[in-house]
Amino acid sequence: MERRINGHTGLLALFGTPVGHSGSPAMYNFSFQHDGLDYAYMAFDVNVEQMPAVFDSIRLFKMRGGNFTMPCKNIAAELVDKLSPAAEIIGACNVFVNDDGVITGHITDGVGFVKNLEVNGVDVKGKKTVVLGAGGAATAIQVQLALDGASEVAIFNIDDEFYARAESTKEKLATRCPECKVTVEHLEDKEALAAAVNNADIVINATIMGMKPHEDVTLIDKSLFRKDLVVADTVYNPEKTKMILEAEEAGCQAIGGKGMLLYQGVVNYSLFTGKDFPIEEYQKFQAEQAK
Amino acid sequence: MERRINGHTGLLALFGTPVGHSGSPAMYNFSFQHDGLDYAYMAFDVNVEQMPAVFDSIRLFKMRGGNFTMPCKNIAAELVDKLSPAAEIIGACNVFVNDDGVITGHITDGVGFVKNLEVNGVDVKGKKTVVLGAGGAATAIQVQLALDGASEVAIFNIDDEFYARAESTKEKLATRCPECKVTVEHLEDKEALAAAVNNADIVINATIMGMKPHEDVTLIDKSLFRKDLVVADTVYNPEKTKMILEAEEAGCQAIGGKGMLLYQGVVNYSLFTGKDFPIEEYQKFQAEQAK
Repeated sequence: MERRINGHTGLLALFGTPVGHSGSPAMYNFSFQHDGLDYAYMAFDVNVEQMPAVFDSIRLFKMRGGNFTMPCKNIAAELVDKLSPAAEIIGACNVFVNDDGVITGHITDGVGFVKNLEVNGVDVKGKKTVVLGAGGAATAIQVQLALDGASEVAIFNIDDEFYARAESTKEKLATRCPECKVTVEHLEDKEALAAAVNNADIVINATIMGMKPHEDVTLIDKSLFRKDLVVADTVYNPEKTKMILEAEEAGCQAIGGKGMLLYQGVVNYSLFTGKDFPIEEYQKFQAEQAK
Repeated sequence: MERRINGHTGLLALFGTPVGHSGSPAMYNFSFQHDGLDYAYMAFDVNVEQMPAVFDSIRLFKMRGGNFTMPCKNIAAELVDKLSPAAEIIGACNVFVNDDGVITGHITDGVGFVKNLEVNGVDVKGKKTVVLGAGGAATAIQVQLALDGASEVAIFNIDDEFYARAESTKEKLATRCPECKVTVEHLEDKEALAAAVNNADIVINATIMGMKPHEDVTLIDKSLFRKDLVVADTVYNPEKTKMILEAEEAGCQAIGGKGMLLYQGVVNYSLFTGKDFPIEEYQKFQAEQAK
């Protein structure tokens, strides 16, 4: 029976719309309870126009922290008191931490991705990387790779409205991370893509291709895979995309998208609490829940 | 392990200061969980000046309802959209219910007290009553007795700053409940008090006398107790006050203050959810917690 929430329990929350499907409340509440921390995590459906009022509530209720999701990540970056380096470059934040009234915004989509590579034995420092896509997750990953010392980030995107964002990321990183070589090319340019993959240590898909209902699509021709190439996906549904399956067949180290979400939560939890997220126990809990 | 809060869970909350010691979160969260209702109840420490912002948050987060405690009950009555009859007369509310954005304020201190009398077999309709005190709880009880059809409410209070409130209650009830005879006299006037008790069916202590550290004090001389008198206390610490013990000795029906709190919660729960509060199960839960 419920014994956890009392008159002293602190609130953390997710803000955005929609949020009803989010797994974050289950994940953080499990961990707070596991670690004996007197917090509860909820989700509130709010839109961009309501975000100034959301910040009033965060301060009023002295919320320790929380998350922002679509479509509120960009406006959130304008409303916090301070920004992490990645959040400042990207102009968005998915995490906030409230230290006695000073609210700092972070963006951990890229941190979670890089952390998942590390856990799989892949260090990005000094590596040449190819990143497909220029949406929110792709941009966060590109910036984090540069901040974490990758020597090259070759961005490929189709000729859509996000192409300009990729060019803007390149410009920002030229100032902030001058030691990292960032290029932007068209995904339709198969020769340029092949050359980049041949030159790369790590290839990352950060588009929705490979995700249901695009599960038959892969953007990298499997003939380009070689044993010393790391192939990583941000797509986690299906757990193994066509690209990941073909990379495994070719003998590459292939890393699916599932871990990215988990390690984003792990990083967030550490920002909220200063503690290590109880990964094994949470995975056991998830397995029980799925039964 | 925590499975209850998800992305759809609705928030209810207690507002006031201090709130950390409150038993309300435990009580309502137990019941929501017991009844399979997707709500969580928290407490937020806020002061009177913050109450307009509290109402913004109630609307922003679409809170279903909640409670106000000291010192926020009076300002709350100015900020709600509608007031229950008792809350309007008293100018205070300890409960709010949010029906799709329309916030109604209720005051259930008196309702809980009268409900506890009913549960103990005492109907106030047509009864002559004496109520000692003119503070918040005393006023709520006086108004509720009148609204519920008591024929007389004789208020006694010492000559302090609350005496004027008792006279104001008398004036308001003269308009709102003209069939109920309300009088106000000084608690120091022992003859008037004795006459009122001799004339009464029910005598109620709604002062802090009898409560620790005033546990040796009783305001009614035990020589006034007769077998057909009902003696009720709002004090619940100690569970049996000196007045209650002496009333029992004299063969009166004596009703302590503990049930008032419980039945206030029962009434609130019904306002929040439309359901009956799981009294027996909650009492079992409390007994387990106390071990």
